[in-house]
Amino acid sequence: MNNVPVFELLEKVRSRKPVVHHLTNWVTIYDCANIVKVFGASPVMAHAREEVAAMAKIASALVLNIGTLTVDFVDAMKLAAKSANEKGIPVVLDVCGAGATQLRDDKCFELLNETRIDIIKGNVSEIARIAGEDVFTKGVDATDIDKDPVEIARRLASKRNCVVVITGKEDVVADKDRALLVGNGHEMMANIVGTGCMAASVIGTFAAVEADYVVAAAAGLCCYEIAAELAVETAAGPGTFKEKLYDAVFSLDRKAIESRRKVYNADTVLS
Amino acid sequence: MNNVPVFELLEKVRSRKPVVHHLTNWVTIYDCANIVKVFGASPVMAHAREEVAAMAKIASALVLNIGTLTVDFVDAMKLAAKSANEKGIPVVLDVCGAGATQLRDDKCFELLNETRIDIIKGNVSEIARIAGEDVFTKGVDATDIDKDPVEIARRLASKRNCVVVITGKEDVVADKDRALLVGNGHEMMANIVGTGCMAASVIGTFAAVEADYVVAAAAGLCCYEIAAELAVETAAGPGTFKEKLYDAVFSLDRKAIESRRKVYNADTVLS
Amino acid sequence: MNNVPVFELLEKVRSRKPVVHHLTNWVTIYDCANIVKVFGASPVMAHAREEVAAMAKIASALVLNIGTLTVDFVDAMKLAAKSANEKGIPVVLDVCGAGATQLRDDKCFELLNETRIDIIKGNVSEIARIAGEDVFTKGVDATDIDKDPVEIARRLASKRNCVVVITGKEDVVADKDRALLVGNGHEMMANIVGTGCMAASVIGTFAAVEADYVVAAAAGLCCYEIAAELAVETAAGPGTFKEKLYDAVFSLDRKAIESRRKVYNADTVLS
Repeated sequence: MNNVPVFELLEKVRSRKPVVHHLTNWVTIYDCANIVKVFGASPVMAHAREEVAAMAKIASALVLNIGTLTVDFVDAMKLAAKSANEKGIPVVLDVCGAGATQLRDDKCFELLNETRIDIIKGNVSEIARIAGEDVFTKGVDATDIDKDPVEIARRLASKRNCVVVITGKEDVVADKDRALLVGNGHEMMANIVGTGCMAASVIGTFAAVEADYVVAAAAGLCCYEIAAELAVETAAGPGTFKEKLYDAVFSLDRKAIESRRKVYNADTVLS
Repeated sequence: MNNVPVFELLEKVRSRKPVVHHLTNWVTIYDCANIVKVFGASPVMAHAREEVAAMAKIASALVLNIGTLTVDFVDAMKLAAKSANEKGIPVVLDVCGAGATQLRDDKCFELLNETRIDIIKGNVSEIARIAGEDVFTKGVDATDIDKDPVEIARRLASKRNCVVVITGKEDVVADKDRALLVGNGHEMMANIVGTGCMAASVIGTFAAVEADYVVAAAAGLCCYEIAAELAVETAAGPGTFKEKLYDAVFSLDRKAIESRRKVYNADTVLS
Repeated sequence: MNNVPVFELLEKVRSRKPVVHHLTNWVTIYDCANIVKVFGASPVMAHAREEVAAMAKIASALVLNIGTLTVDFVDAMKLAAKSANEKGIPVVLDVCGAGATQLRDDKCFELLNETRIDIIKGNVSEIARIAGEDVFTKGVDATDIDKDPVEIARRLASKRNCVVVITGKEDVVADKDRALLVGNGHEMMANIVGTGCMAASVIGTFAAVEADYVVAAAAGLCCYEIAAELAVETAAGPGTFKEKLYDAVFSLDRKAIESRRKVYNADTVLS
């Protein structure tokens, strides 16, 4: 077990209501905004190049997601990220679909090289791709690489000097020195569109109130995935699950968190 | 109490099924379309500069929302609004996020100066900003200004010769001579993304069938917010609330409206 | 009755999990992605001109929908369609809103003339417009033309040498030689935004696993509409119906399909 202050950070999100600025994809933009909202924070989804820098300046976190990227849209992301960097607020990059096309890889690397990304988030294939693990990019089968996501995360975190989050059955949250695992969640999350993108929004929301981003990301994922566990209990399938997930996040309390939390140090588990 | 024909206008929407053309934001575009649909009307969401004028010509109302504006998108809004003005159909502008960035303010004023906007809709901070109330634009805390939304609405309505709607715990609907209050609704509406944007779509839908836009806006908001009250009764949180809101709008009947309606003349209440 | 292997194709979708690439509209993009997901397949919604050709190459079907078209967006559709044509995967075009503006008609014809569209899908008014039936384009009342959708579908299928799907109370699926009717579904589908767009995504998903596109389209629609019938049974209105529709698709089994399927040869019914 680990002493990450999960409930305390949830309370901090609810009391501070941070503004979380997104430049995200058009498929799940409502979900990303809404998950931030039901956590008690304040989503803003502006993407015009003329206002993204100003909007980032009134925000407490910035979330970027390349799911439906265009060249112009990534240019606006860079402007927003540079403004966020100046202000010193956390920038989360969801490398959604990295490895699927050259454009996605190129744009991820541009963002990583031209701006400061504080937290990189993806599934194991996407993160492996961004980490430069060529061996893993030929296939799409995540089972090929499920033995060392902690190592992949650590290596990328060290290379980019940032926090890396790999979502999966067990989420990995690592920087160059530490690695936490979050074991909450439910396989139903994989049956519906939007749960991955929302995870990045949750990480941004918690990073807005906690400067240790490893702790923030683990706490946010833990809350979000406990809510998913609760939602599954009364859902009849992926459609009703999605709505109940919002209900469960909104009602999440200390008791549910303390009785269900599964946040571990990776070394404890692995050794 | 007031003699606004709330149920009668709902019936008119359902029987005439007006086409309501939107240029709106990408976060809640589905919600805006769907609320129009469950009211029994017909949403159209075209935004290409090459077709917005033609589409406005086959519509009975036009709803503009700057939530995810770009410069090009506002240019298309102007083309649509001018076409709507020529046809004589009502144009609603949701000044979503006014005051947050210079771009938003500038584009709102361009729309107001270059086209005829019949109904301006926003929350009290947004409307105060558009009304030029500098004192209110420094903070975001709506409680600073909750004493005189009626006065703010009246002043802007008089200045722009249009109808102004300020949504809130009590909605204000005013033109230069009249002011109505709508006291329906539920605080749960503030816990989910989309309820504000949908309000503008509802106003447009009712303005499509009633030429007195003060009456139309008040009747539309009253119906929508009564549906919210009904939805809350069986919702377990903001997620299920949203779906039940659509159900409740779809099933809204005379009995629910007549027993719950809270539409007042502002002077009656305030004096 | 007809021997279309409805359940067998559903099983094939679930086991093969085909990637279904969309360039679709912004209103229902989540719905289109999600219906593919709950069927067990894998949606991809990339639209950047720089990557659509590459993305189509890793897909097993391409779905185009002009609901919120722009000129640039249709250019990207053409690049995607040409790439799909080269690979030999099915291309579905939802002629959403054809007949409403000149732009829509022009762009549909450009797509049909410059790329190979394998399946054209629309409601009866839209398909009549694309078929060049001038008599039907003056009104919007579908009842004017409800006598010969089979004939309209067949004529367009013959002219364009493709499969044509007309959705409605009874769906028509025709090529130049054959015509099937699918009698499943429920009128509640018409009370909510997204059901039409989702139908095209379902057709694409089934065409990804069955090279006889008449069979694929009929089987997909049959599954989707049986799920709608099941969802209606416990829904309280269009909002909850939508979520239960996803649940029902996810849980669809052989028993429900075999006991409810209504797939006929058009000639059998009409003669």
